[in-house]
Amino acid sequence: MADLIPDFYAVIPAGGIGSRLWPLSRADAPKFLHDLTGSGHSLLRDTWDRLEPLAGADRIAVVTGRAHRAAVEAQLPGIDDLNVFLESEPRDSSAAIGLAAAVLVRREPDVIIGSFAADHVIRVPHLFEWAVRQAVATARAGYICTLGIQPSEPSVGFGYIRKGTELVVDGAPEAALVERFVEKPDLETAKAYFADRSYLWNAGMFISRADVLLAELAANEPELHAGLLELAEAWDDRDRRGPAVDRLWPGLKKIAIDYAVAEPAAEKGRLAVVPGHFDWDDVGDFASLAKLNSHGRKNDLAILGPNATILADASSGIVVSQTRRVISLIGVKDIVVVDTDDALLVTTSEHAQRVKGVVDALKIGGHGDVL
Amino acid sequence: MADLIPDFYAVIPAGGIGSRLWPLSRADAPKFLHDLTGSGHSLLRDTWDRLEPLAGADRIAVVTGRAHRAAVEAQLPGIDDLNVFLESEPRDSSAAIGLAAAVLVRREPDVIIGSFAADHVIRVPHLFEWAVRQAVATARAGYICTLGIQPSEPSVGFGYIRKGTELVVDGAPEAALVERFVEKPDLETAKAYFADRSYLWNAGMFISRADVLLAELAANEPELHAGLLELAEAWDDRDRRGPAVDRLWPGLKKIAIDYAVAEPAAEKGRLAVVPGHFDWDDVGDFASLAKLNSHGRKNDLAILGPNATILADASSGIVVSQTRRVISLIGVKDIVVVDTDDALLVTTSEHAQRVKGVVDALKIGGHGDVL
Repeated sequence: MADLIPDFYAVIPAGGIGSRLWPLSRADAPKFLHDLTGSGHSLLRDTWDRLEPLAGADRIAVVTGRAHRAAVEAQLPGIDDLNVFLESEPRDSSAAIGLAAAVLVRREPDVIIGSFAADHVIRVPHLFEWAVRQAVATARAGYICTLGIQPSEPSVGFGYIRKGTELVVDGAPEAALVERFVEKPDLETAKAYFADRSYLWNAGMFISRADVLLAELAANEPELHAGLLELAEAWDDRDRRGPAVDRLWPGLKKIAIDYAVAEPAAEKGRLAVVPGHFDWDDVGDFASLAKLNSHGRKNDLAILGPNATILADASSGIVVSQTRRVISLIGVKDIVVVDTDDALLVTTSEHAQRVKGVVDALKIGGHGDVL
Repeated sequence: MADLIPDFYAVIPAGGIGSRLWPLSRADAPKFLHDLTGSGHSLLRDTWDRLEPLAGADRIAVVTGRAHRAAVEAQLPGIDDLNVFLESEPRDSSAAIGLAAAVLVRREPDVIIGSFAADHVIRVPHLFEWAVRQAVATARAGYICTLGIQPSEPSVGFGYIRKGTELVVDGAPEAALVERFVEKPDLETAKAYFADRSYLWNAGMFISRADVLLAELAANEPELHAGLLELAEAWDDRDRRGPAVDRLWPGLKKIAIDYAVAEPAAEKGRLAVVPGHFDWDDVGDFASLAKLNSHGRKNDLAILGPNATILADASSGIVVSQTRRVISLIGVKDIVVVDTDDALLVTTSEHAQRVKGVVDALKIGGHGDVL
């Protein structure tokens, strides 16, 4: 299991701010740069560390905004300059992953790329490795392959993948076709999915031959595909790369890879899934951050922040402390308190999804300085 | 109504920190120095402004800690240096008011003193004045007189005074004897009191000839009385005053004036009460501060702090902002958020009384710097 996969290249799109984790996550300190698990490392670094035993340090690319270049390189001192793909602005996942595919396939025609979000939490690395190795084997057989997480509870917070016909692929005993994608269900449906076990969480991880992925993109989004090829052609010439991004990137269609690649491929029977048995969370909001850090114990108060001084009396939920202030909580249940130098958020787990609305309101209200 | 009362001297004990309003109130910024009503003035200043039309600026004394001298004088630029009584440490209300009585009676044997807490909120000043004028008339007739607030609701948060036999005192048509004091009642009892209307809130305001008050103190607490006389004898000699405080003050018995004077006087039929029809609140905790500042409207969010930037979505309660941070609240009901530079409190109205416990815990925990 310890061997690198020779034809594998890992791609980490590190783009989203994570607005639902404001004021912790914000434009100049996006979610992927935070340590959200108390591991001592940022989520980006944890992602890198998970992929290094599979791809090797010189075969991990990061696609990120120009503004985050320094922070990303500080987190990943081992990264090759050639593997930092800088966006002039966010253009969603098809452009980000498609660019990496288009550039890498020129360097290495048979390359298999796997894209893994920079801001997810994954535990039990050997189970992650096992799933990726199966997915690479499935990709080698010509499929676009996604990892579907075997649910650990009937969650209503994630979309689902319905597993279909099992595939016979050497090295991938668990691979199956994707029958269909399902939107976030209600609780009753989620319970049925959980019992069924052929429904997996859609974690947005894709592993594919770069040329296969590009062909699918060409079929569904020809203009986007053409733009990416033009970019890739200029990419490995340092003098042409920046101007090409300036010229082409802002015109690329913003579309999630789920719609531009995965769903059309599923309809054609070209999308496979390998179930992942590892712990996974996309840490979508403070409710999930609270759960993640209270280790599933009810009535616990999760505390994030190396300098946190918390005095809690009959309180539960989560406190994120980025200041040195003393924080006292009395009798507040399922509370979310996020204390930063210029902004304070107080809400509850129940309303954690609505944080994005506050961010929008702050934008409109002229408080962009705290976003 | 506009005339000063010539034999009247107002005394303002400005001692308590107001621990239940931590972290707003604290050792170096006690409750009476805060603007808790949005009036633009501190509670101390509001108290002074209420008393000035009755006593005159040169006949209002403040009893406060040495540490607060500068702050008190800054709030009350009109105060005579002779009228600032400095305690070396807090010794409760009998010592504070008794000292003022002992000093003032030497200056003016027939003086009537009235003591009014520095940190209460009173609205409708002409009704306050009318009650004080009646109380002074009652005091002139030899009674120790308290103001009892006519309840505006069946409160369980205050002690009560049962009004007894009506008195016939010129200039005090509402004066009556105090039949007895009652501790904070349960809700059912409070409702009965409210319907009865002979039960008044005990607001701790006492008006009395200084010599009558001292005689009562001498009868009940002879040692305390003797210490106060010794202090008073040295008081008006600036060179002797400070050393006398250092020597005598720390040895004085700590006892509330309710126990050392009011209750014994009531038993002897010497305590009178005049009902006050003004709005009154002792702002005992954040729940009452919230109520005070939401003007009785349910589901309101009261906001205190001149620089507050609050974004509230489906939230009620109170936010006290002493910083320039953006504060966002989402879906938190009856919340109490107090945001200061070095400490943050999050609780609910229901648990507001427990703030004092946090202060005690911080003391024990070595966080005295934020108290």
